[in-house]
Amino acid sequence: MEYQNILHQIQSELPYQKAIGKVASYIPELEKVPKDKFAMHLYCLKSGHYHIGSHEEKFSIQSISKVFSLSLAMSLIGDDIFKRLDVEPSGDPFNSLVQLEHEEGIPRNPFINAGALVISDILLSKLKHPKEELLAFISGISNIPTINIDNDVFESEKKHSYRNASLLNLMKSFGNIENDIEEVLDFYTYQCAIEMSCKELSSAFAIYANEGKKPTTSIALIPPSKIKRINAIMQTCGFYDEAGEFSFRVGLPGKSGVGGGIVAIHPGQYTVAVWSPPLNPKGNSELGMYALERLTTLTGLSIF
Amino acid sequence: MEYQNILHQIQSELPYQKAIGKVASYIPELEKVPKDKFAMHLYCLKSGHYHIGSHEEKFSIQSISKVFSLSLAMSLIGDDIFKRLDVEPSGDPFNSLVQLEHEEGIPRNPFINAGALVISDILLSKLKHPKEELLAFISGISNIPTINIDNDVFESEKKHSYRNASLLNLMKSFGNIENDIEEVLDFYTYQCAIEMSCKELSSAFAIYANEGKKPTTSIALIPPSKIKRINAIMQTCGFYDEAGEFSFRVGLPGKSGVGGGIVAIHPGQYTVAVWSPPLNPKGNSELGMYALERLTTLTGLSIF
Amino acid sequence: MEYQNILHQIQSELPYQKAIGKVASYIPELEKVPKDKFAMHLYCLKSGHYHIGSHEEKFSIQSISKVFSLSLAMSLIGDDIFKRLDVEPSGDPFNSLVQLEHEEGIPRNPFINAGALVISDILLSKLKHPKEELLAFISGISNIPTINIDNDVFESEKKHSYRNASLLNLMKSFGNIENDIEEVLDFYTYQCAIEMSCKELSSAFAIYANEGKKPTTSIALIPPSKIKRINAIMQTCGFYDEAGEFSFRVGLPGKSGVGGGIVAIHPGQYTVAVWSPPLNPKGNSELGMYALERLTTLTGLSIF
Amino acid sequence: MEYQNILHQIQSELPYQKAIGKVASYIPELEKVPKDKFAMHLYCLKSGHYHIGSHEEKFSIQSISKVFSLSLAMSLIGDDIFKRLDVEPSGDPFNSLVQLEHEEGIPRNPFINAGALVISDILLSKLKHPKEELLAFISGISNIPTINIDNDVFESEKKHSYRNASLLNLMKSFGNIENDIEEVLDFYTYQCAIEMSCKELSSAFAIYANEGKKPTTSIALIPPSKIKRINAIMQTCGFYDEAGEFSFRVGLPGKSGVGGGIVAIHPGQYTVAVWSPPLNPKGNSELGMYALERLTTLTGLSIF
Repeated sequence: MEYQNILHQIQSELPYQKAIGKVASYIPELEKVPKDKFAMHLYCLKSGHYHIGSHEEKFSIQSISKVFSLSLAMSLIGDDIFKRLDVEPSGDPFNSLVQLEHEEGIPRNPFINAGALVISDILLSKLKHPKEELLAFISGISNIPTINIDNDVFESEKKHSYRNASLLNLMKSFGNIENDIEEVLDFYTYQCAIEMSCKELSSAFAIYANEGKKPTTSIALIPPSKIKRINAIMQTCGFYDEAGEFSFRVGLPGKSGVGGGIVAIHPGQYTVAVWSPPLNPKGNSELGMYALERLTTLTGLSIF
Repeated sequence: MEYQNILHQIQSELPYQKAIGKVASYIPELEKVPKDKFAMHLYCLKSGHYHIGSHEEKFSIQSISKVFSLSLAMSLIGDDIFKRLDVEPSGDPFNSLVQLEHEEGIPRNPFINAGALVISDILLSKLKHPKEELLAFISGISNIPTINIDNDVFESEKKHSYRNASLLNLMKSFGNIENDIEEVLDFYTYQCAIEMSCKELSSAFAIYANEGKKPTTSIALIPPSKIKRINAIMQTCGFYDEAGEFSFRVGLPGKSGVGGGIVAIHPGQYTVAVWSPPLNPKGNSELGMYALERLTTLTGLSIF
Repeated sequence: MEYQNILHQIQSELPYQKAIGKVASYIPELEKVPKDKFAMHLYCLKSGHYHIGSHEEKFSIQSISKVFSLSLAMSLIGDDIFKRLDVEPSGDPFNSLVQLEHEEGIPRNPFINAGALVISDILLSKLKHPKEELLAFISGISNIPTINIDNDVFESEKKHSYRNASLLNLMKSFGNIENDIEEVLDFYTYQCAIEMSCKELSSAFAIYANEGKKPTTSIALIPPSKIKRINAIMQTCGFYDEAGEFSFRVGLPGKSGVGGGIVAIHPGQYTVAVWSPPLNPKGNSELGMYALERLTTLTGLSIF
Repeated sequence: MEYQNILHQIQSELPYQKAIGKVASYIPELEKVPKDKFAMHLYCLKSGHYHIGSHEEKFSIQSISKVFSLSLAMSLIGDDIFKRLDVEPSGDPFNSLVQLEHEEGIPRNPFINAGALVISDILLSKLKHPKEELLAFISGISNIPTINIDNDVFESEKKHSYRNASLLNLMKSFGNIENDIEEVLDFYTYQCAIEMSCKELSSAFAIYANEGKKPTTSIALIPPSKIKRINAIMQTCGFYDEAGEFSFRVGLPGKSGVGGGIVAIHPGQYTVAVWSPPLNPKGNSELGMYALERLTTLTGLSIF
């Protein structure tokens, strides 16, 4: 089946999916997003773009931003980041403190909140204008002139960040946070509030499917060895305590966000972004996972 | 053996105890206290006062203050405090976050840090001048005109309270903290910095051994039914994850602090306070536990 | 109020108690016991016996037997038993494996199943005829000529002992079980199936309230120092993860069993046994706890 | 670089690797294997076989056998196996009981011991001659006429299987084991004692790299959709609590065994087996991991 037909096929199946998921409610601003929003954008390195739904509508990318900040931190200090966090799947919810306490302030991986907060701390220490430079980094890898944040989401999330403040204080007590807690929290929350469309996300992730190079250029913005490692972390840790399920059903490295977005990549082949706000109990987009599972089944293209 | 002789006997044995303990180091100001300080003060309801060592020297009572703040909170809102915390021994270190996460922000008991922080939150909500009123409460039950705090300890501890800030933020995320986190932390740290001598502590705890009455008066400041409950909590939860060991070796309800103080009571008989800064690995005064074990062995007087 | 009147008072209140408890169902034979059975027997060292309900009816004492086997093991090898288990409250359900794994096969205390299995292992190693000698020990401390087991309960429980077999295998993997697993399981299950009445239990526990001596004799069967320690363990560990609640509400050392029995003691004063099969969610007799709370409230006699 | 040259390059680097690993000691028979054994066998679907070291020497494949038994179970009852176990990485050691207790007897994935024991239970229920049929299955997918077990390892391991017996009893208490515990343990231990060489393993795993087909035939022995799922589980769960590290460093789905063997696959490209007995602290072959990391680095071929 041709790609566009596959997307249409997926779209035709969606109404028959049980939608038991709920839109994220712990950030009030996110809860306002209509739950029937849907978009999917497939970007094949060889044959171009395909989409269904409102693929140019921006939404809050939330934890998907953790891939960008990890990449920026790795490009700044390389494997030194792994002195301060690990790369193992956690087996616990995204905001759990249990392992963090047992492992004395060393987060399990950069995609759970604790790990992403350490990455934020690193960027704060290394960059003069961390907010602007992170946005510029995303802009640079994606050919999108301006990347913005949703200010209402940013403010709303800052008022409900006790859990992240708890993680930060715990890590600071173990000496694994260098900067002021309020500053780390501010920067972390800022990056979560970045808004992008499915179309933009599939472009921004192209370097991960293309050995670090933008499809239009031949220079690697991130060395292939680092890209390989980031992809491996997406594979094992990209979906909180549902990483195994995603790998099992979809078979691609990827990253989800509580805004209902998921991005996945097939190295050498394509990137794909999908958006549907209702989340399953593990915090991943319910229809998003369905759509991606159907994509790899109908195309027969997974990394396995 | 007569009481004073028993105390002398204990004093004569001390030099032969292995002192492997270490003075609490996580609060820099506490670490400055000479490790060979020692005092013990026994107050028998019938026969009066006995002591060895520097029994009138004040030290930082730290977590012993949790008994006072619990008592004040119970006198203000009674058993309603147990809607917000439990009374079970924790089986975990005093500052652990594990159970707090599993039990959705409900601390195991009022004597681990999480529970004492909830008590601080309650006092902040109920009292106009919480600091002054807590000091006045201690003053009132003990016939000591003025109770003070050690300001250096207070300031030092405030700078090293990330772990407690972590607990507070976690509980706030579950809705179990009403006041501003900084305010709760300030008040909690303030009460930990109270300084009293062994002589003063043994007087202040007399109401717990005397059905809520000061030995010199016949009016209960705290009803006997509440005293019984506070004593029961001291018995099962007064020594962090060493409550069983203390009960087993000493056989009295009591409460320890990381300043090296321990107070224990024998209902109807006596109160006893001991002070020796080096702590065992569980955070309780090493020589203090030894001295109390010898006291109940040599007098043959324990609650069991 | 006079003791017999107090018991009648308690009896009169029982019908108005919500009985939400359920009879233990994991041992089918226990589930057959009528849930409205009730008995209470108070034995005052000075003034003799008082009772309400069917105080001479035997029931399965289950975990109450752990006090007897601990006493026998302590009389055989003394404090050496504490090389193989600890004395801390567990904070977890009675049959949990979590702490046992973290602490490398060392049970938290002798009253959770893991600890009692280690005690069984010790008795098997030290005694020629462990079953007979345990029954003889109970007979000896209680002046009851013959102690029997309920064979149906014994057989029923043996068929449902996977959880205990799991604990035994885990401890054996850490080298903390000497004997054959089947033999330990057989002996442990045997002791749980001992049946006694409230009257008999209150007599058997008299030595714990009387410094190791039977009330009728002046020779200590167990040295007072050991009695003090056993009582301390009952206080902190006698009610699984509800030890704090029992201490808080009742204020006496004691031990419960899933057959619905509870025994408690007031050193120097009395022993009391109560029986009501429905259990609360923590596995302790619901009405039993109520009756004991009322007893210490109405008599004003608790150890606190 | 040509494949054979790459293998020689890896071989030349080995002497300079710190070998801090230790040969598995909990099965005495495994400890007898000389620690300097080494073999590596690469089987490229297109260009054939390459090897270094004693690639035809058989060793105990241990947990690598879990891939075969999972495959056989999936071919018998399909996704129904996932009613009895999950597919999430565990974040805990291979024989941990903690999550098994929290998740009421449902193992985290089929490659930790608990999960593999459930698979053994399924095969016992579904097959008349499970031992023979499992060996025949491996023989069938690998074109190796006879697969044998090492009887000394089998007997040695059966005598040291308390931990697995603990897991089985715990799962049986939750109703997740159908057969007799001894039988499941016998069959599980039998499969762990299978011995194969690196050459044989690379052949046996060819179907996982080739969409379920043997390279020499065009019929899928296992449907591609199932192969994809098994590979995904190898990726996220194949290396106990080091799955993330393996994915990060090597970037291939694979499975290790405590005998020192590791097999990894690159779908559509190759299979590779490596053997070196000393294990790192997580229980995976230390030099094996090094060799595979070098292979994907030098060839530039990983799934990411």
